[in-house]
Amino acid sequence: MAFDRGNFSSYSACGIPYYVGGVVDDVETLVVRSPEVFKEKHSIQVLLGHDVLEVDLDRGSLLVHDRVGGDRRREGFDDLMVATGATPVRPDLPGVDAPGVFGVQTLDDGVELRAYVTGRKPRRAVIVGGGYIGLEMAEALCALGVETHLVEAAPQPMNTLDPDMGALVAGALEDFGAILHLGQEVAGFETGAEGRVTGVVTSEGTIRAEVVVLGLGVTPNSALAMAAGITVGPSGAVAVDRRMHTSHPAVWAAGDCAEKRHRISGRPVAVALGTHANKEGRVAGINLGGGDATFPGVIGTAVTKVGALEVARTGLGEAEAAEAGFVADAVVSESTTRAGYYPGAAPITTKLVVERGTGRLLGGQIVGEEGAAKRIDAVALAVWNAMTVEELMGVDLAYAPPYSPVWDPVLAAARRAHENSRRV
Amino acid sequence: MAFDRGNFSSYSACGIPYYVGGVVDDVETLVVRSPEVFKEKHSIQVLLGHDVLEVDLDRGSLLVHDRVGGDRRREGFDDLMVATGATPVRPDLPGVDAPGVFGVQTLDDGVELRAYVTGRKPRRAVIVGGGYIGLEMAEALCALGVETHLVEAAPQPMNTLDPDMGALVAGALEDFGAILHLGQEVAGFETGAEGRVTGVVTSEGTIRAEVVVLGLGVTPNSALAMAAGITVGPSGAVAVDRRMHTSHPAVWAAGDCAEKRHRISGRPVAVALGTHANKEGRVAGINLGGGDATFPGVIGTAVTKVGALEVARTGLGEAEAAEAGFVADAVVSESTTRAGYYPGAAPITTKLVVERGTGRLLGGQIVGEEGAAKRIDAVALAVWNAMTVEELMGVDLAYAPPYSPVWDPVLAAARRAHENSRRV
Repeated sequence: MAFDRGNFSSYSACGIPYYVGGVVDDVETLVVRSPEVFKEKHSIQVLLGHDVLEVDLDRGSLLVHDRVGGDRRREGFDDLMVATGATPVRPDLPGVDAPGVFGVQTLDDGVELRAYVTGRKPRRAVIVGGGYIGLEMAEALCALGVETHLVEAAPQPMNTLDPDMGALVAGALEDFGAILHLGQEVAGFETGAEGRVTGVVTSEGTIRAEVVVLGLGVTPNSALAMAAGITVGPSGAVAVDRRMHTSHPAVWAAGDCAEKRHRISGRPVAVALGTHANKEGRVAGINLGGGDATFPGVIGTAVTKVGALEVARTGLGEAEAAEAGFVADAVVSESTTRAGYYPGAAPITTKLVVERGTGRLLGGQIVGEEGAAKRIDAVALAVWNAMTVEELMGVDLAYAPPYSPVWDPVLAAARRAHENSRRV
Repeated sequence: MAFDRGNFSSYSACGIPYYVGGVVDDVETLVVRSPEVFKEKHSIQVLLGHDVLEVDLDRGSLLVHDRVGGDRRREGFDDLMVATGATPVRPDLPGVDAPGVFGVQTLDDGVELRAYVTGRKPRRAVIVGGGYIGLEMAEALCALGVETHLVEAAPQPMNTLDPDMGALVAGALEDFGAILHLGQEVAGFETGAEGRVTGVVTSEGTIRAEVVVLGLGVTPNSALAMAAGITVGPSGAVAVDRRMHTSHPAVWAAGDCAEKRHRISGRPVAVALGTHANKEGRVAGINLGGGDATFPGVIGTAVTKVGALEVARTGLGEAEAAEAGFVADAVVSESTTRAGYYPGAAPITTKLVVERGTGRLLGGQIVGEEGAAKRIDAVALAVWNAMTVEELMGVDLAYAPPYSPVWDPVLAAARRAHENSRRV
């Protein structure tokens, strides 16, 4: 039996910006498995619109609130799987709860935002925060013809990249029409007649807007588990072992609410990504069913589309490497996605972060047009296997003029990093 | 000082089919460095149109023939670099030397073929052999509006793939208009009035054609080195160590003429690919100059474009694994290049070859549309690092709906192979 407080089961949260922007038209296509499918094919009863208010570990029961029917009841369990996901950060600022201010985390949020935008046809929007969701929502709103402003406290958008790589992303945002307000803090939200949002107050003035989207990231939704006495780790997510077992023998956790181990820094982290959630869910399910599987941890790989740009990262950035105690050097290398003479060859910038002395690859970032994004997987596998840049530059990667220069951008970057490491 | 018997220096041989087909219009764009650039920037004298007829290792001299001036002279050397490349296989069949029958290896060959096709406007062409060059040339000739027939002795084109994956390629060939004659041997070539080729005789009849392209692969051009007493390995290529040193202390070799070690089978192989040639050339150059570098060997990675399909391979195929002494299982997995709901999502087929018992990944093949090709690099890195499919399925690869399903096709294939390995 599974409870979810929302109106959709088993959906692609990563698809929400594309639904809002109209790239994906039918919200149902984002749902991988409906409650009917769960019931018929997997004999799992999924109850939507049900809020779990409390977990009683001693009695092995949940207090459940049926949001539609209105009743509250207790449900017993032998094993409990906590998959409560993450919650968008809502800054404690005046007006943040006004109608027209949206956090976008659940598919219900996405449906509500799209209805608001298509119904009210706002002229101007402000996105607060320049992370993945913020940038994807900026693109979605620009695509809908809304004048879209992006406010970001840092000097560059996308602080999951190093600032030099983030600067490349800023250009792509402007290319599709977003208006950037970088290095500006948000102080609050102005509201109008019906209490609706009318503007965003920043450190440099007020930006008029009829719709605001919060893209300030998410925090693991571990409150329910914590209230029940289950251990929450230093990242704020539910602590789990490699088998996705929590501190309580009957309780498992997976997904955005569960803590992950970063394999390079060795630290516990909270990373809200569907690819981890999927792998973890599989591991937890196998173990719950009496099997044996383990989740090996993460290395911080991520990719997103920003207009014509593909933006990807893996492992540690420069600042992250320093924070994790590595002495590292970074090398930026320019190349093309195809052989220079082949039609459609486009620039691609690759940055590698390398441990000084050993030459071990700690991380990489790639920004470029078509064909850039999935190249990060080669970097990710090199980081995963603790390869040195000297070893990476010799690897037999694929080459043909429509797909790569004879030195693939990843190999060329590794070569440059290796040559640099001998000079340092 | 460098001698080359052709008319171009340092060019992209892999670009020749795209020049012939008109995808690339200016032949000069395929030349990476002209003799002028070599002279001015690198102080290297490059003599084109010069044939080296003989190497005298005792005297440390070459017998050189100036094909333009006509004179023969001796040139001395302290160190000799052999980079004689490869030669297209020309079967010993009646009519093979007739005008209109082309082997395509050098840029001169490409220039000659394009001039022939644009000048004589042949109505029909036959490609003999369905390897990389054969398929790329078939596409080039179809693009020029020539009715193009492909004759291949095997039951499927592209015998560098397993037959089940080759069958997918056959469909793509027909999609751009090539007419396939599979499982047919070529017996000879018919010629007409001026001695020009007029048809190809196969085991099932004669195919009329005014131009024939041989795509039967290449052999290492090691004759010059062998005649000088330098050791040639079992693959027919010049034997070298990891520093690209031949059996003679003053002689180095790199590129298509030099033997490579296959890291998975452990065997010496001849593989004619620009990506290896480039890496080897760099290694030989560093060592010649007194430095120290090594070439780590190959794992058989290759990729090509066949119409709308991207076709890639790495490591060992099923038959190759058996031949190398592995007991292996193969798993084929179907997925999409993007999230299923994202516009442009296209089918992608991934095949993995896995050692039985250990679960070690030995090789992979990928056939699919846009976004398929460079995914082979992830498989290549997994093969290179001797990863098991269980380990690979857990790796943190990039996910975002425009670029991948939540389980990347490579991860999904590894997962399926792992699940299969527990059943075998």
